Amino acid sequence: MTQLKDARSGVVTPEMEKVAAYEQVDVDWLQEQMASGRVVIPANRRHEGLVPCGVGEGLQVKVNSNIGTSSDRAILEEELEKLRVSIDAGADTVMDLSTGKDMDGSRKSILAASTVAIGTVPIYQAIVETVEDKGALIELDGDKIFEVIEKQAQDGVDFITVHCGLTLAALDMLKKQGRITNIVSRGGSFLTTWMLHHGKENPLYEEYDRLLEIAQKYDVTLSLGDGLRPGCLADATDRAQIHELMTLGELTRRAWKKDVQVMIEGPGHVPLDQVETNIILQKKMCDHAPFYVLGPLVTDIAAGYDHVACAIGGALAGAAGADFLCYVTPAEHLCLPSVADVREGVVVTKIAAHAADIAKGNKQAIERDRQMAVARSNLDWETQMKLAIDPQKARGYREQNPPEEDDVCTMCGKFCAIKQVRDYFTG
Amino acid sequence: MTQLKDARSGVVTPEMEKVAAYEQVDVDWLQEQMASGRVVIPANRRHEGLVPCGVGEGLQVKVNSNIGTSSDRAILEEELEKLRVSIDAGADTVMDLSTGKDMDGSRKSILAASTVAIGTVPIYQAIVETVEDKGALIELDGDKIFEVIEKQAQDGVDFITVHCGLTLAALDMLKKQGRITNIVSRGGSFLTTWMLHHGKENPLYEEYDRLLEIAQKYDVTLSLGDGLRPGCLADATDRAQIHELMTLGELTRRAWKKDVQVMIEGPGHVPLDQVETNIILQKKMCDHAPFYVLGPLVTDIAAGYDHVACAIGGALAGAAGADFLCYVTPAEHLCLPSVADVREGVVVTKIAAHAADIAKGNKQAIERDRQMAVARSNLDWETQMKLAIDPQKARGYREQNPPEEDDVCTMCGKFCAIKQVRDYFTG
Repeated sequence: MTQLKDARSGVVTPEMEKVAAYEQVDVDWLQEQMASGRVVIPANRRHEGLVPCGVGEGLQVKVNSNIGTSSDRAILEEELEKLRVSIDAGADTVMDLSTGKDMDGSRKSILAASTVAIGTVPIYQAIVETVEDKGALIELDGDKIFEVIEKQAQDGVDFITVHCGLTLAALDMLKKQGRITNIVSRGGSFLTTWMLHHGKENPLYEEYDRLLEIAQKYDVTLSLGDGLRPGCLADATDRAQIHELMTLGELTRRAWKKDVQVMIEGPGHVPLDQVETNIILQKKMCDHAPFYVLGPLVTDIAAGYDHVACAIGGALAGAAGADFLCYVTPAEHLCLPSVADVREGVVVTKIAAHAADIAKGNKQAIERDRQMAVARSNLDWETQMKLAIDPQKARGYREQNPPEEDDVCTMCGKFCAIKQVRDYFTG
Repeated sequence: MTQLKDARSGVVTPEMEKVAAYEQVDVDWLQEQMASGRVVIPANRRHEGLVPCGVGEGLQVKVNSNIGTSSDRAILEEELEKLRVSIDAGADTVMDLSTGKDMDGSRKSILAASTVAIGTVPIYQAIVETVEDKGALIELDGDKIFEVIEKQAQDGVDFITVHCGLTLAALDMLKKQGRITNIVSRGGSFLTTWMLHHGKENPLYEEYDRLLEIAQKYDVTLSLGDGLRPGCLADATDRAQIHELMTLGELTRRAWKKDVQVMIEGPGHVPLDQVETNIILQKKMCDHAPFYVLGPLVTDIAAGYDHVACAIGGALAGAAGADFLCYVTPAEHLCLPSVADVREGVVVTKIAAHAADIAKGNKQAIERDRQMAVARSNLDWETQMKLAIDPQKARGYREQNPPEEDDVCTMCGKFCAIKQVRDYFTG
């Protein structure tokens, strides 16, 4: 049984109950949303201790944080600290993107420590181990991909990125298109190398039913990846990208037929004026399956501040209907993020998600801002700190620079506007 | 003579030449834009060493940084360092919002040190000195406001915020409206206190012609302030805010009749879904005078990260037609910003302005991102650093976490996607 099958059978699962309570929505409505595929609850039956989270239309916009070792830096304790910091800062899910040594060990540690849904990109492990064992990624055996997927599913991974829409036809479209950055998806680049070297179709596309069987067995949610996502603004919304999206739309329906939960992954680098178009295209072509976007970054030149470029695009995407925002840290494009970078990335992406929720009329989000406004109006600093998106940082600023009068701040000091006119507008 | 009068007389000034060259636009087109009031060049004839900058329709979106002492913290050298950092990080203008001791001295020092246009809010000095001399702001003499304005104009201030639309009628509208945060504009709160105490009209509205005479004499650009800007999302786009905006529209035409350059100031705190509406309203009601927005912040709960909430709103506002973004620092709502906060605020707001420029099809902005994409595709790190919005921060990340192979980064290490597929898509 999967959450989708249950929803279609009219069964309200404990996971649906928890998600409905958290979101303050009617559980029958939620079950209908899930039955239509518009909402997923990534929850592998083997992930013990998971607090389930819903993603999709009508729910609050969710935020994912990426952690994991790389070949250049593989310190498990550091990645576990990033997991803790992510959850503390409000990440709704975390992806383990490890490519460093002992990937099985780090994944199991992360799953054991996580209360939030964990995602992975299994092709990473398939490729890294192939390179280790056989010296080159072109030596990858197609079966190896499915073996890794099954192993990760058994471990309790809640959702997996699988680049099933990266077909030979899509690569042909890409070559004819002509791009500046071609392929920037790591998984996409591995598959492309293998496919073009052997002249063979992508196993994740060709043997998609095999993938569906595993996903169905463990209730792993498929996050259909965008191997051809644009790597720069100039490449956005081009024929290669949209070709892959169309394939993902077809694969969505095939997954639903097997009761497998599906999300669609999206860009990437997108100019601000094309963000809404990208959301509309995905919603139409993929029958309103949840949309999981990476950023999008609205400029290519924000190295060191890509979390901000991502927050701009993410807020706009969320307001236009994107359901799930993958964070970006200040270290994006430059190096593996530190623990502090991870925290900054999560908070900033939460701000984007929250701004989108308000724009879409989410009552909980609007109410929190209203309470903050009342606290400001009352010069009630303690409540302001509690309601702040990151109380720790807000308190730090205030404490390092204390005002002479307790009820104001050092920006305006005794000339505080709110204090000034308070007596004229009360009672 | 003002730049506006010159433009209307068909005179192309050296300032117009410089702005046209910087913006890569035709100078005759620029002169027409200025003649119609859609573009201003804030350039007091007495500000020596000024590099003029244009603000308005068809030009790149500009960024302002706020500096200045407060009653709780008044260290001139620190504010001069903020000026230098602002200009270095790309601020197009700087406002001196000092309310600490020796305001004449700090303003003169800032003007002497600045190559960018300097703005002020003269009501601050009028009030602070009244409180010092007479013990209470209600003792303000209406003439004092104009004396301060003339003094600041003589010193070379390029643009001044004047809350001329904050009338008794607007305050009546505000009272009937009912708000959570009432008035959060410092200048607005001073004037409101004075007006309601004495039951008298705002001198800046009642003696507007006197203001225009001074502005005309020195070519000080009026930045018509929004004393009733919303201080929280719940108060946005209400009757009080729009009443003031309508008055500013009337005052814009009166300024143009006297050849005085005008910008309009806008909010503030605005939900994402109301940002575009605010731009359309201003452009329609104020005959397309340049729009100078503060943020807007798209959530109230981002204390410690209000620069990001501001970047989201600013990017969207800029794309919708706002011409000029006033930055917000991470310290907003908490304390007077440090030098580091100022730098962060400017860079992040520049990202918003740049994203907006791209969305509007600005060729220079698009070209810079294209070059960055080419550098990424070529794994040309030196060019990436040069094109980054803040090379200093980008280099810092890369240098603190050097990769094993020089041409990649530690995020993907040897599994770099670009490197992986490079051979398949070249030649």
